[in-house]
Amino acid sequence: MLARSQLDDFFSYLRFPSISADPTRKPAMTGCAEWLAQKFSSLGFAAAVHQTAGAPVVLAKSAFSPGKKTILIYGHYDVQPVDPVSLWRNDPFEPVIVNGFVVARGATDNKGQTICHILGAEAALRARGELAVNLIFLIEGEEEIGSPHLGKFLESHREELNCDAIVVSDTSMAGPGVPTITCGLRGIACLEVKISGPKTDLHSGIFGGAIANPATELVRLLAQLHHADGAIAVPGFYDDVIPASETERASWRNIPFDDKAILEAAGLSKLSGEKDFTALERLWIRPTAEINGLTSGYQGAGSKTIIPREASAKLSFRLVPKQQPDVIAARVCDYLKSICPDTVRLEMIYDHGGEPFYADANSTFSRAAQFALKEVFGRAPALVREGLSIPVVSLFQHILKRDVLLIGLGLPDCNAHAPNETFPLEQFENGIHLHQVLLEHFSGK
Amino acid sequence: MLARSQLDDFFSYLRFPSISADPTRKPAMTGCAEWLAQKFSSLGFAAAVHQTAGAPVVLAKSAFSPGKKTILIYGHYDVQPVDPVSLWRNDPFEPVIVNGFVVARGATDNKGQTICHILGAEAALRARGELAVNLIFLIEGEEEIGSPHLGKFLESHREELNCDAIVVSDTSMAGPGVPTITCGLRGIACLEVKISGPKTDLHSGIFGGAIANPATELVRLLAQLHHADGAIAVPGFYDDVIPASETERASWRNIPFDDKAILEAAGLSKLSGEKDFTALERLWIRPTAEINGLTSGYQGAGSKTIIPREASAKLSFRLVPKQQPDVIAARVCDYLKSICPDTVRLEMIYDHGGEPFYADANSTFSRAAQFALKEVFGRAPALVREGLSIPVVSLFQHILKRDVLLIGLGLPDCNAHAPNETFPLEQFENGIHLHQVLLEHFSGK
Repeated sequence: MLARSQLDDFFSYLRFPSISADPTRKPAMTGCAEWLAQKFSSLGFAAAVHQTAGAPVVLAKSAFSPGKKTILIYGHYDVQPVDPVSLWRNDPFEPVIVNGFVVARGATDNKGQTICHILGAEAALRARGELAVNLIFLIEGEEEIGSPHLGKFLESHREELNCDAIVVSDTSMAGPGVPTITCGLRGIACLEVKISGPKTDLHSGIFGGAIANPATELVRLLAQLHHADGAIAVPGFYDDVIPASETERASWRNIPFDDKAILEAAGLSKLSGEKDFTALERLWIRPTAEINGLTSGYQGAGSKTIIPREASAKLSFRLVPKQQPDVIAARVCDYLKSICPDTVRLEMIYDHGGEPFYADANSTFSRAAQFALKEVFGRAPALVREGLSIPVVSLFQHILKRDVLLIGLGLPDCNAHAPNETFPLEQFENGIHLHQVLLEHFSGK
Repeated sequence: MLARSQLDDFFSYLRFPSISADPTRKPAMTGCAEWLAQKFSSLGFAAAVHQTAGAPVVLAKSAFSPGKKTILIYGHYDVQPVDPVSLWRNDPFEPVIVNGFVVARGATDNKGQTICHILGAEAALRARGELAVNLIFLIEGEEEIGSPHLGKFLESHREELNCDAIVVSDTSMAGPGVPTITCGLRGIACLEVKISGPKTDLHSGIFGGAIANPATELVRLLAQLHHADGAIAVPGFYDDVIPASETERASWRNIPFDDKAILEAAGLSKLSGEKDFTALERLWIRPTAEINGLTSGYQGAGSKTIIPREASAKLSFRLVPKQQPDVIAARVCDYLKSICPDTVRLEMIYDHGGEPFYADANSTFSRAAQFALKEVFGRAPALVREGLSIPVVSLFQHILKRDVLLIGLGLPDCNAHAPNETFPLEQFENGIHLHQVLLEHFSGK
């Protein structure tokens, strides 16, 4: 049973328009971080809002007992941009409940999943007066832009963040009601490509035919990102890819993965992608090259007969173990430079990158989590990979050097990053319960 | 010598933000049309603002004498959009004079050239009390969007518009101080291409690799508009192109056409285009395929890792005699449909078209105009072609069936259609004088 106060907390958290990509949202970022710190204080945690060179980090610690295991729970309070706003059926920052789903930006990614842990700790404290483990909450505000300042924060707070294991709930379940631990994630490299030509937009009648059109040169470059068969054409792109083991591939045959569900979630009638791979393999163990945005020239109503002065694209590459984002970004830059004609100027901006991740499902904490998930959801968890990136996961591995457990509560059709993002009320309730059970299993008693 | 009142009239005319492509500018369109009608009334013309299904048309007639020749002067009071506004050094609709140039949207295209004729008629009336010919001014407000309603207006006012010749000043001079008659124009076909995929923007980590990306499919389609050598790849695209005669090509060797001037005007170091043709030929007698705008996905600051739900492009094709816009638009649609994969949906919108134009330089009125130009500018006019489109010219040929004379006062570096459009004050003064001399020569006396 959900308490009214639990829903109130969730909604208060969702109402902050904490879009980290948008510099004008700084007041909302700060407001959201302060709200979290107050919530933790009300639970008796020692909570602080730490300033960084970017968005603040919220750090909260329960009362510590030397004999207990220490668990760090990571989340992020920042959210993706909301455009195109016109496609939302409600204000993205005024949550509503529709047919048992909470609809708001951040509902799943990641406020919904973070608040489950917070309210789970609250419920555990109410039920027993203390927690079965020492708990550290680390909630940052720059996950959606690649966590550029978190590494430095982890390094300078290494002692304070010392723990036995790290829990991250920012992934998806393999299907509704299927508890899931994610043992692998794709990494990412994000770039911007900009082609410049004439000093100003030019009349396409006066100049057209005799000078290079930056938009035309851009589409010609980008069309060469892939071969005709869907493979990525950047030289050396696949050099460091480790193929999935047969054991992994075998385990995936038992999970409820369904091409039809992908098509329905996407609203499509046909899948696409690299040949000789299944859809699941394309999503989990194959790297990608995607165009996330295109901008050039006139985009208003009607027509404007110009040769645009510039054209640009936002690109992201999903990476798999052991591809390195910096190496991939450099290979992409080299490739595009090598094929760009000298009639235009090419500029490449490497925005950010995150390494791919792979975790051992047989560790002590992973097994404890598997028991907890079975207890709450009534079936053994699926051990999957996911196609998305959580750059912070590799930071934890490199800096804090502890096991990272990815226990996701998202669902494939929750519209993460898209308009009308949702989180089911049922999942919210189970998530709060799960946190309590997890702490018991982690305690080792 | 320019009179203060002449500059005041020019500036008043420029201050109307009469952007025909922008539906929110209707009040400015109406205001500008009414201002013109009032100006004509003040000269003793019978002037009226005629409503159409689009922007109003201004029609003004001088006192008519049966024995005089009748000349129709066409212009347009609508202007191109002003974005990117941030690149203007002044408000595009608050004209300023900088180093002898008037800077404002429409300064050259076409308010500057129109007002020269109007103020020329005013000067002639002041000097002699009457005009040497009967004069009809027809000034429309939809030239920049392809004059969609002018054909119907010409047809329903055919009697009222009966004349001996038509003068249009909406072209460029071959160089500063070089009087010019334009004997050929390129036509145009404007299309929008839209590719749709998933029902909403999708998380590129969750879905990336297994579904088609509309932005990727768009760039792949558009990259196939041209062959590697710069020729257009649409089947049948060149079928109806008439090659230029050797006589024409020979006459162009004597005009001051300079690759360096094009490069300077464009701010480029290298020309581009179809192989085996000179820059001048590429601009005047070869058709083009240009991308005027690209839109897809996230275009804000930083990155957003989505597969965009749709991607679109604005295209325009410059056409040469005897290419037909409708035929070309259909061939482009057929071609793009034939190469578009079935994993996305392709929508093509044919926005508007205009036929290419060719005129005889040996007609009575063309020769009269050549004399007038020589008298005002001190040298025989260049007989050139231009690369741009004036769809209305073919309407005049088809509906009013009279010679059309293209006597342009624009300069190659006037930034028509671009930020910081200019018109030299010297050109303004010469233009007013030219109109007076033209009327004398046209009168046949």
